[in-house]
Amino acid sequence: MEERGNISIHTENIFPIIKKFLYSDHEIFLRELVSNAVDATQKIKRLSSIGEYKGELGELKVKVAVNKEAKTITISDNGLGMTAGEIKKYINQIAFSGATEFVERYKDASADKDQIIGQFGLGFYSAFMVAERVEIVTKSYQEGAEPARWECDGSTEFSITTAERAERGTDVILHVAQDSEEFLETARLRTILDKYCKFLPVPVEFEGETINNPSPIWTKQPSELKDEDYKEFYKELYPFSEPPLFWIHLNVDYPFNLTGILYFPKVKNEFEIQRNKIQLYSRQVFITDEVKDVVPEFLMLLHGVIDSPDIPLNVSRSFLQADSSVKKINTYITKKVADKLAEIFRKDRETFEKNWDDISVFVKYGMLSDDKFYEKAKDFVLLQNTEGKYHTLEAYKNLVQANQTDKSEQLVLLYTTDADKQHAFVEAAQNRGYDVLQLDSIIDSHFIGMLEQKLEKTTLKRVDSETIDKLIEKDETKESVLSEGEKEDLKKVYEEAINNKNMTVEVAPLAPDDAPVVITLPEFMRRMKDMNRAGGGGMMFMGEMPDMYNVTINANHPLNQRVLKAEEKSQLARQAFDLALLSQNMLSGAALTTFVKRSFELMTKE
Amino acid sequence: MEERGNISIHTENIFPIIKKFLYSDHEIFLRELVSNAVDATQKIKRLSSIGEYKGELGELKVKVAVNKEAKTITISDNGLGMTAGEIKKYINQIAFSGATEFVERYKDASADKDQIIGQFGLGFYSAFMVAERVEIVTKSYQEGAEPARWECDGSTEFSITTAERAERGTDVILHVAQDSEEFLETARLRTILDKYCKFLPVPVEFEGETINNPSPIWTKQPSELKDEDYKEFYKELYPFSEPPLFWIHLNVDYPFNLTGILYFPKVKNEFEIQRNKIQLYSRQVFITDEVKDVVPEFLMLLHGVIDSPDIPLNVSRSFLQADSSVKKINTYITKKVADKLAEIFRKDRETFEKNWDDISVFVKYGMLSDDKFYEKAKDFVLLQNTEGKYHTLEAYKNLVQANQTDKSEQLVLLYTTDADKQHAFVEAAQNRGYDVLQLDSIIDSHFIGMLEQKLEKTTLKRVDSETIDKLIEKDETKESVLSEGEKEDLKKVYEEAINNKNMTVEVAPLAPDDAPVVITLPEFMRRMKDMNRAGGGGMMFMGEMPDMYNVTINANHPLNQRVLKAEEKSQLARQAFDLALLSQNMLSGAALTTFVKRSFELMTKE
Repeated sequence: MEERGNISIHTENIFPIIKKFLYSDHEIFLRELVSNAVDATQKIKRLSSIGEYKGELGELKVKVAVNKEAKTITISDNGLGMTAGEIKKYINQIAFSGATEFVERYKDASADKDQIIGQFGLGFYSAFMVAERVEIVTKSYQEGAEPARWECDGSTEFSITTAERAERGTDVILHVAQDSEEFLETARLRTILDKYCKFLPVPVEFEGETINNPSPIWTKQPSELKDEDYKEFYKELYPFSEPPLFWIHLNVDYPFNLTGILYFPKVKNEFEIQRNKIQLYSRQVFITDEVKDVVPEFLMLLHGVIDSPDIPLNVSRSFLQADSSVKKINTYITKKVADKLAEIFRKDRETFEKNWDDISVFVKYGMLSDDKFYEKAKDFVLLQNTEGKYHTLEAYKNLVQANQTDKSEQLVLLYTTDADKQHAFVEAAQNRGYDVLQLDSIIDSHFIGMLEQKLEKTTLKRVDSETIDKLIEKDETKESVLSEGEKEDLKKVYEEAINNKNMTVEVAPLAPDDAPVVITLPEFMRRMKDMNRAGGGGMMFMGEMPDMYNVTINANHPLNQRVLKAEEKSQLARQAFDLALLSQNMLSGAALTTFVKRSFELMTKE
Repeated sequence: MEERGNISIHTENIFPIIKKFLYSDHEIFLRELVSNAVDATQKIKRLSSIGEYKGELGELKVKVAVNKEAKTITISDNGLGMTAGEIKKYINQIAFSGATEFVERYKDASADKDQIIGQFGLGFYSAFMVAERVEIVTKSYQEGAEPARWECDGSTEFSITTAERAERGTDVILHVAQDSEEFLETARLRTILDKYCKFLPVPVEFEGETINNPSPIWTKQPSELKDEDYKEFYKELYPFSEPPLFWIHLNVDYPFNLTGILYFPKVKNEFEIQRNKIQLYSRQVFITDEVKDVVPEFLMLLHGVIDSPDIPLNVSRSFLQADSSVKKINTYITKKVADKLAEIFRKDRETFEKNWDDISVFVKYGMLSDDKFYEKAKDFVLLQNTEGKYHTLEAYKNLVQANQTDKSEQLVLLYTTDADKQHAFVEAAQNRGYDVLQLDSIIDSHFIGMLEQKLEKTTLKRVDSETIDKLIEKDETKESVLSEGEKEDLKKVYEEAINNKNMTVEVAPLAPDDAPVVITLPEFMRRMKDMNRAGGGGMMFMGEMPDMYNVTINANHPLNQRVLKAEEKSQLARQAFDLALLSQNMLSGAALTTFVKRSFELMTKE
């Protein structure tokens, strides 16, 4: 036995699926129908331009009207219209031209660039997601054409009759179903039109107003545009946002077609950063604001629009990732952004520095996640010091080299994660003539690690990780005014006063004007614990470990000479230690209350 | 003219869409084919049980095998098999039985409870998402049935030939397409099987192992199960999690069908809370872990499984919200959770208290978002005080009523948002015999607002919002040891020493053992600013305003009598003010460094 045959699909079975389940959002019906209408007007324009249509074009436009009493929504155009024969061909045979062509075209992105939407013959049927009955009243542009009315109640049966219609064009009339009456609200329709149709290339009228901007600036050449145009367009996109810092006009024909404008937003604080602010269009029809995979992750923080007919639509995410034109778009956008930043840095360093706080997170994130971006950005990434001055990596290394190279020829860059909380340590470093960087954003802990990997013979240390002498070790030894025995005694006094296993006490000869007691948390230990807190790398046991601090008692400070001789040695040592804790923001709760009370008492007694 | 006709779908056009775009994830093919195979084994079992099939059932199972060299994946079952005639009926006519029935059934949730998956005839065609050619080799259970082979290369043409197959059942053989070779990796297949097939009701074999648990505990009666069973199942679902606190076994037949187990997880900290930990099944087939809309939002933090054939599948989210059975499920789950919590509270208060820290966020969130839940939860919601004791709302009100009712008959509940930072204030309140609540989680600021709305004549105040006398105003007046003139002088000394417009200085007679200087931030002001920070309610101008503090100078503290007489009035006042700032955690940066240095100097001099 051998038998051949054809798989068949029963229309009456598949139709309900197409109607109800093809789109995940019911509101999409309006995008589909308005896009079809726009398409019809653009086709008549093309026919006219090649001489196939000799009549008057008139003012081409699309109208959306709602009648709450009759429960209808009507989408009208003065496009090319259809004859009864064409209705049968295009409407009654679902997916006649659409699907196969669609599948074919996105395999080869450089193919014919006709519009996807509208070709995709299924779009029309989305009308049945919200309507219980749909009418089409249409008159073809062809000479002597009879107007026709098509009607269908959502079953697979339809009727075609002659109709009255004087002018060329099409009305699609939706008789809205009971469960979709929300779409009869003008506010709802306006919101949907605003979302999907804001930049359609033909005027769309609703309630007597044109609701769209048919020539958004991304469709124009950069040479035609001024700064003001870009700023105004930004305002149009995000009415409540502060003006953007700067922007990049994307414009490429080959090997893929893409236009758009990406803006660097002004960011007030890190919590405010919003993803999904880039809108994706296909020939001016809004598709989505989820541009993951199309735009590199570190650029998701940008705002703006991207318009490309080459991004496959209606395609699952896993498919999108593998798509080769999507990958190329990704690389292109990364390169354009890096080039733009390099250009601003070169041409207008002042503006670049002024905006650095806003763009640093993009740049650092990009350097961390994309090696090609790192190579370009390493020349313009800026380091800010506690005095608010900005330096490039290269310039900064040169600046601090003389004073901050330690005895083993390592360049030591000092930083603070919180200039306020680490104030005493920042001040101590500055008094030595050291420079201190501000690396205080969430991304900086990763950025620090990257710098150490990329820069040769360079270490970064937080200002409070060592006493000032050890932070950058030079070939110097300080004399102690205390004898070894006195140092031993002093150590014991403090150990007893502190009475904490996690505090390692050491007596060392610092300068007499350094603090009498200094508490430090070693760099390595702190980084491990930070990483652990951030949830990285399986060093889970670090989380369980207490912080281990070093307590350095300054043998050369007069207070400590007094401690050795005083009667209430322990009380004096404890008060000095409490003050060191305060400098490290480590005195709180009951201990702080005790300290404050003790201090008030001492003041009252005097 | 009037013409009637039928809309027709051209199979060759719609087929590519069904194959490629019906499912958003390609990996779904395995779920669909394994579910079909399981279905076939369950059908033969049913036929056997009603006597329609007289042969041996054998050990019913499904096998998944991969052959990397031949580039095939084979799904085999020993279910009921098909004859050539049945293949033609069920496979060749897409959506023969599926779609319409599907649409019908979910309109009426109490209809026939047959399986959805498998009925949905399109599922089989998902094979073409990954295969360039599909073969079916099958032999029906019917006596004398001829084995048949069906083959199709993804076009609409197929062939049927006779085949060799000794045993009853079906093999579906996928010849994997080049762009889908990732699915030939056993690790990948195992991951997919683990995700979708882990609890299918028939053993599924892969690489010589049974990969599923065919009888998960949610399919059993609660009476058959012990605590250990629930705990072990939790471990099976979340191998790396700590044991759950407790659980709720869901089991309902009418008006919808739903089984499942919801666990209260042990939460280490608020940042760790994970949504999307509830898995949604339909007759033991994994569907999704996005249960938004099915489970009330405040219960999204729970873990576990829900299995219901009544939740419409493959349906858009906006549709899901409106679905009436989904709404009923939602209400049912909320009620069950409230009842379970009430039961534990009643029967085992100790366990309830022990777990309160972990469940309080669910309970408070629920009370805030659902009035019905509030009504039940108000009897078991607990307030914890700074001594770690738990009280119900009613019990707490009774406890503090006598001592914490102010002169206008308002009950004043005191709370701290950080017992460590507000330690001095908590201590002062406790010294007056007041009780202080700990309300320190993110949700508590909303919870506080809700309590004030719901409880009559009750106000909540943070301990540091007023000096201790004003926090709960009684009918008492304190005498001042300073004359009006001295008070005026003292006020001037402090105002000059403080020199800050945002600090309102007032001299008042507190107790002599209260602090000499107290800084407070009024409750109303702080709440407005907190709300503003959290991004709520259009009081944007509040964000711009500086914090306005009250500085109360204790006229009865001996230190202030000394300040009036001392030579370095200003320095003394400044030091006292700095100590008050410390108690409010407001001394930092350069000011803190100055304070520490000044203190070291004073200590060294003495």
